[in-house]
Amino acid sequence: MKNINIKALACELNLSVSTISKVFHDSYEISDHTKQRVLETAARLNYVPNPYASSLRGRKSKNIGVVIPEVADSFFSLAINGIESVAKEKGYHVLICLTHESFENEKNILKEFQGGRVDGVLMSVSRETSHSDHINDLISNGLPLIFFDRVCEDVQTAKITTDDFESGYNATEHLILQGCSKIAFLGISKSLSISGKRLEGYLNALADYELKADKKNIILCTNDAKHNYTAIKKILQQKNKPTGIVASVEKLTTPVYKVCEMLKLKIPKDVKVVCFSNLDTAAILNPSLTTITQPAFEMGKTAATILFKALEKTNFNLTGESLVIPSALVVRNSSS
Amino acid sequence: MKNINIKALACELNLSVSTISKVFHDSYEISDHTKQRVLETAARLNYVPNPYASSLRGRKSKNIGVVIPEVADSFFSLAINGIESVAKEKGYHVLICLTHESFENEKNILKEFQGGRVDGVLMSVSRETSHSDHINDLISNGLPLIFFDRVCEDVQTAKITTDDFESGYNATEHLILQGCSKIAFLGISKSLSISGKRLEGYLNALADYELKADKKNIILCTNDAKHNYTAIKKILQQKNKPTGIVASVEKLTTPVYKVCEMLKLKIPKDVKVVCFSNLDTAAILNPSLTTITQPAFEMGKTAATILFKALEKTNFNLTGESLVIPSALVVRNSSS
Repeated sequence: MKNINIKALACELNLSVSTISKVFHDSYEISDHTKQRVLETAARLNYVPNPYASSLRGRKSKNIGVVIPEVADSFFSLAINGIESVAKEKGYHVLICLTHESFENEKNILKEFQGGRVDGVLMSVSRETSHSDHINDLISNGLPLIFFDRVCEDVQTAKITTDDFESGYNATEHLILQGCSKIAFLGISKSLSISGKRLEGYLNALADYELKADKKNIILCTNDAKHNYTAIKKILQQKNKPTGIVASVEKLTTPVYKVCEMLKLKIPKDVKVVCFSNLDTAAILNPSLTTITQPAFEMGKTAATILFKALEKTNFNLTGESLVIPSALVVRNSSS
Repeated sequence: MKNINIKALACELNLSVSTISKVFHDSYEISDHTKQRVLETAARLNYVPNPYASSLRGRKSKNIGVVIPEVADSFFSLAINGIESVAKEKGYHVLICLTHESFENEKNILKEFQGGRVDGVLMSVSRETSHSDHINDLISNGLPLIFFDRVCEDVQTAKITTDDFESGYNATEHLILQGCSKIAFLGISKSLSISGKRLEGYLNALADYELKADKKNIILCTNDAKHNYTAIKKILQQKNKPTGIVASVEKLTTPVYKVCEMLKLKIPKDVKVVCFSNLDTAAILNPSLTTITQPAFEMGKTAATILFKALEKTNFNLTGESLVIPSALVVRNSSS
């Protein structure tokens, strides 16, 4: 829903703009009853008083907002460092808000951002996000928003991504070339752009090498660690268990290693593992982990650089600025 | 510097309060010349227009601010989850701002927070922070602030910490009992409360076991990864090199392991290692890492709970609410 402005609110209430303004400055001239009425209608019609844009035209908040699912993931913490490297140079603060993979949280955060708190937004959507009205609302209210990593395909703006399809393909092909014919894929969401593309890459690699995909070996992990352990265990306890695993997010590394230890499966002898990960500790794991290493810092930096172009130039066309930065397959002992 | 209020600004400029107010609402009644004059004086005297508190008395921003050095550290990402678990229940957003260990950034963030953007602040100070005027300014402007983990001792407020002295002592004693007589300590800052206390614990353990502390084996690591590698290498290349290492922050794990590999030193045979760390991967490292595991989630949760007590009750005395939550020594293969 598009926010309404003060004029539309006044019209709706059959009051003057100055009366509304006085309510929002808590003037003694206005009765409590009228204040109450205005506040209720404002809430219902999604009117957000804009302390900066409306109060001092041209003044910027000098903040940019970053909306991400979590920080307990090296990808996002490195991307934030990339974003901050640009923001600092421009004299901006970065406000980080976490959705914890909840669509409801994401909507609330974007609504909150429309009060003039930030001048622009960098975003990686939650796992639950399957439509984009809340994002289009923000953009139509004049706030530039740029996606990085996890995007909504249908929103017209710049998208800074990595080559998720190719990375899924490369990880899978690597395991095939190492002799795996049964390979499991651990995803996190069907609707999520990155997860879907990685899965597609996996399926295409299998098809190109004339290997059959098996539904039982493709699972979606959740925020619930216990559920993930059980699901991974189930896969590795099958009679015809997979000899390779592509884990599409970093936080699945520890459960995969621990389940293998529990089941006395040796990595890489019994099971070979590739994980999408920017973990600093990948090289010192037991065994060291083969990773798809994403250009996290560069993605954050690029997204922020483009956002500032939009902030500095009116009518800057963001849709022309999308960019795909390639990831790298780093082969270590877990797969060879 | 304490922020001045609108009355003091009006007095300074010899203008009425309503004129100042009109400037900050960009009224057409006020000339550009006067606007310019007011804005310049406001900037000089540190007047921050408060869009919420002043514009709608009693209205809350429904945000709390979290100021931390970085997110690329499991301690902070877990603490954030603890904070958010409470904030969510209370219907608040959490705005996370990173100082990247810079005192200048920290000051700017706190100043920014005084504009009504947040109702309260949870903070872990930067490595560079050695005095607390900026924090006392914030508090004297009516914003409750609570420290967690890294504190300024002299600020009168609640401090949620862990037993850093005991943890430093326990880590060192554990290595002594494992047969180490020369133990290195990798710290990060002399002025930082946690680092100082962990070092003190280390020194006390050595003294209690009649072992001599050696200045050459006590180093301060920085944000510069290269510097840290060189410093750790230097320690481990000595003729009489230490056979034990206490690393006081998580991010030193990878450099310690990599330097040992480079120098062909086996952990734990040649060097035993204990690290302050909440790394999810500690148990799957090569070898698995003995850690001082801090109650990160609990510390964040407790700090947030106390902040909301202060938000819900006027004149709530924060100084009585400090709490020390113990850490645990988790022994794994890197030390035994």
